[in-house]
Amino acid sequence: MQKNVIKIGFLGLGTVGGGALQILRQNGEEISRKVGAEIEVKRIAVRDLKKARALEVDAALLTDQVEHVVSDPEIDIVVEVMGGVEQARFAIEQALENGKFVVTANKDLMAQYGQQLLAVAKKQKKNIFYEASVGGGIPLIRPLKHCLAANRIKKIMGIINGTTNYILTQMSKEGKEYETALAEAQAKGFAEADPSNDVDGWDAAYKLNILAGLSFSGIIAMNDIYVEGVSKVKLRDILYAQELGYAVKLLAIGEESEAGLKLRVHPTLIPQNHPLAAVENEFNAIFVEGDAVGEVMFYGRGAGSLPTGSAICADIMDAARAIKNEIQNCVIEANFAAKKVVPMEEQVSRFYLRLKAKNEPGVFAKLATAFGNERVSLDMIIQKRSDEQTAEIVLVTNDVSEGSFNQAMDKIREMPSIQSINSVLRVVE
Amino acid sequence: MQKNVIKIGFLGLGTVGGGALQILRQNGEEISRKVGAEIEVKRIAVRDLKKARALEVDAALLTDQVEHVVSDPEIDIVVEVMGGVEQARFAIEQALENGKFVVTANKDLMAQYGQQLLAVAKKQKKNIFYEASVGGGIPLIRPLKHCLAANRIKKIMGIINGTTNYILTQMSKEGKEYETALAEAQAKGFAEADPSNDVDGWDAAYKLNILAGLSFSGIIAMNDIYVEGVSKVKLRDILYAQELGYAVKLLAIGEESEAGLKLRVHPTLIPQNHPLAAVENEFNAIFVEGDAVGEVMFYGRGAGSLPTGSAICADIMDAARAIKNEIQNCVIEANFAAKKVVPMEEQVSRFYLRLKAKNEPGVFAKLATAFGNERVSLDMIIQKRSDEQTAEIVLVTNDVSEGSFNQAMDKIREMPSIQSINSVLRVVE
Repeated sequence: MQKNVIKIGFLGLGTVGGGALQILRQNGEEISRKVGAEIEVKRIAVRDLKKARALEVDAALLTDQVEHVVSDPEIDIVVEVMGGVEQARFAIEQALENGKFVVTANKDLMAQYGQQLLAVAKKQKKNIFYEASVGGGIPLIRPLKHCLAANRIKKIMGIINGTTNYILTQMSKEGKEYETALAEAQAKGFAEADPSNDVDGWDAAYKLNILAGLSFSGIIAMNDIYVEGVSKVKLRDILYAQELGYAVKLLAIGEESEAGLKLRVHPTLIPQNHPLAAVENEFNAIFVEGDAVGEVMFYGRGAGSLPTGSAICADIMDAARAIKNEIQNCVIEANFAAKKVVPMEEQVSRFYLRLKAKNEPGVFAKLATAFGNERVSLDMIIQKRSDEQTAEIVLVTNDVSEGSFNQAMDKIREMPSIQSINSVLRVVE
Repeated sequence: MQKNVIKIGFLGLGTVGGGALQILRQNGEEISRKVGAEIEVKRIAVRDLKKARALEVDAALLTDQVEHVVSDPEIDIVVEVMGGVEQARFAIEQALENGKFVVTANKDLMAQYGQQLLAVAKKQKKNIFYEASVGGGIPLIRPLKHCLAANRIKKIMGIINGTTNYILTQMSKEGKEYETALAEAQAKGFAEADPSNDVDGWDAAYKLNILAGLSFSGIIAMNDIYVEGVSKVKLRDILYAQELGYAVKLLAIGEESEAGLKLRVHPTLIPQNHPLAAVENEFNAIFVEGDAVGEVMFYGRGAGSLPTGSAICADIMDAARAIKNEIQNCVIEANFAAKKVVPMEEQVSRFYLRLKAKNEPGVFAKLATAFGNERVSLDMIIQKRSDEQTAEIVLVTNDVSEGSFNQAMDKIREMPSIQSINSVLRVVE
């Protein structure tokens, strides 16, 4: 017999949980009509029962015991929006073992333990939905799992961290230095007090792990991903990039080649007419390239209470439909395989390099020779006088492996005429 | 007991059907792994058994009888890619009544008879999947049905016809006149020998009907949509638009307001920095604005054999999963309601107007007065001398209802100093 009321329990009621709850209230009637069953919030576990909340919540719904949600036999779906890894992992495992469907926005958790948790879900003939873990409300997980499922995905590339994109946009549009832009992002709530998870690239790397796993049906370890953040990007580099026709963006890139998977997150120069160059401030955009569909792009707000709540609610609706239709064993991500990963040393890029050299004859020839010896050819060069004694040189190389580039750089660093290497960034056309 | 082999039959094997078949062959192993069952093509109905085909097909699979597909008891899924309305409608009804799931790329059919067919599917506890009917391989139907399902959709706006976008891009980038651009599009296979379905806006209107129906849960009749094609757009207007900071695109726009639905397809001036202005040639892009998610955009190739085949195959996979999981009654579009539609007369736009007037004192004052009497204020004006006797005037109005604008135009047409009204286009900011 089909259920007419689906009961859900929340773990956490912060920004994302609050957003989801607000949408369930605001659009509840439509949501129930579409699902064909009423969605009832039965219990909400919070850390502090007495905390003041933006959203009015019946005190009888609240509990400070996770157990009261994950073990309540009436609850069909557990919505994990408490964050953190260990406690959330334990709670989700319990929920699955108690026969519940799970919805989560937890990217750190899904990146690191997604496969294990999905295996538990499979064993229990339930499922975990995690659309909200990447790209806020932008549809990405479902498109990869369903709409593009007939494609062999060749590449994914995108801006999947709103905080760093806000910082880089402010630097490039308003001419702000990194530190100023970061402080403003913090003041506006786009960056946390400890911004390291965002600015060091880890947030993007967790999300890339999830997207690449789905795209390439691969089990990916976090240390398979090369991660470099934006904290070393200088306003000066952004201005030079603009002069050369590029914008600087923190890109997450995943590719499958015959040699294996290539997975990396780093600040990147991309041509100003590339659609990703136009993605500003807290917005996200992700290109997916499939062998059949070609390139498709998804764009929108990658974070925030209501956008992320939108994804959570879509997942709740799909879980509710699965329950209503008594679907068993709908987990399709649980037969992923470990894949060979191409070491960063062997990956090929173009490079942007900014350095200071003594303003003396023959310096440039020595530089060019050092690159030439490693078969690195140069595509663009800007040389400006810095002061009487010093010249600032900006180079863009053609394609070269990280290994060869680094060998050339080792030699360049030893040259007496080179005063400082100020910046090394990668370039994607 | 779960099925291990899902058998499908094709109706038609043209561009789209051929693309889908090619993908099923090329990525068949992966597709079967993801579905958890083998997908076997059992029968293909074609018009002409002897026609030479790009794709090699076992002659034993072919039949020239639709009946052999829709009535074969072994076939689980019927893929309708034969096009046309009446015969396809009858075949799909038969297939549903014989207990089959249906996948279709037929936008004309789904726009005009989608609700009736979905009602049959509901009665039969089957479903119709039609992702390929709009936007080729770009995920749109599933995002609206699932990913954004918790949102109240406020607006959809996009470029959903590749042929006209190719023509307008060639006009604006290469300075070609409409007729030249159209002839080239025909030579390249982007436009048909009889291009009227595309250039008159009907293809976009069918797709808007489908998208708006899903977005607003509404039953929409084709004559609820205001449709204007691109054949009257002159190169001269595109150049003036550029001078004023706009690009000209054929937009399909659907909005839900308190007064009702607003549905229209027409060539539109949009600001050059709007993301849709950057969508070139045969590409499509669609903005969706939801109350929770904000604005999201989907971008990619809106037509072509493999991109559209990608959507067909995704639908085959979802249908196969539904069969494997014995899902009954998964139709969620069958409880749509008729909605009030705001007549075009009452819709509000800004307008671009190009006209020729006698080069004599007071002409502009008369024009401005005619607009002022209808409370139409002017935002931008360009006046150029055409020859000794004639001035060309280009105006952009502020927001005004179609009704008031047309009344002003009626008066202006009667003025002796006005020689010709050369162009009227709408402007969206």
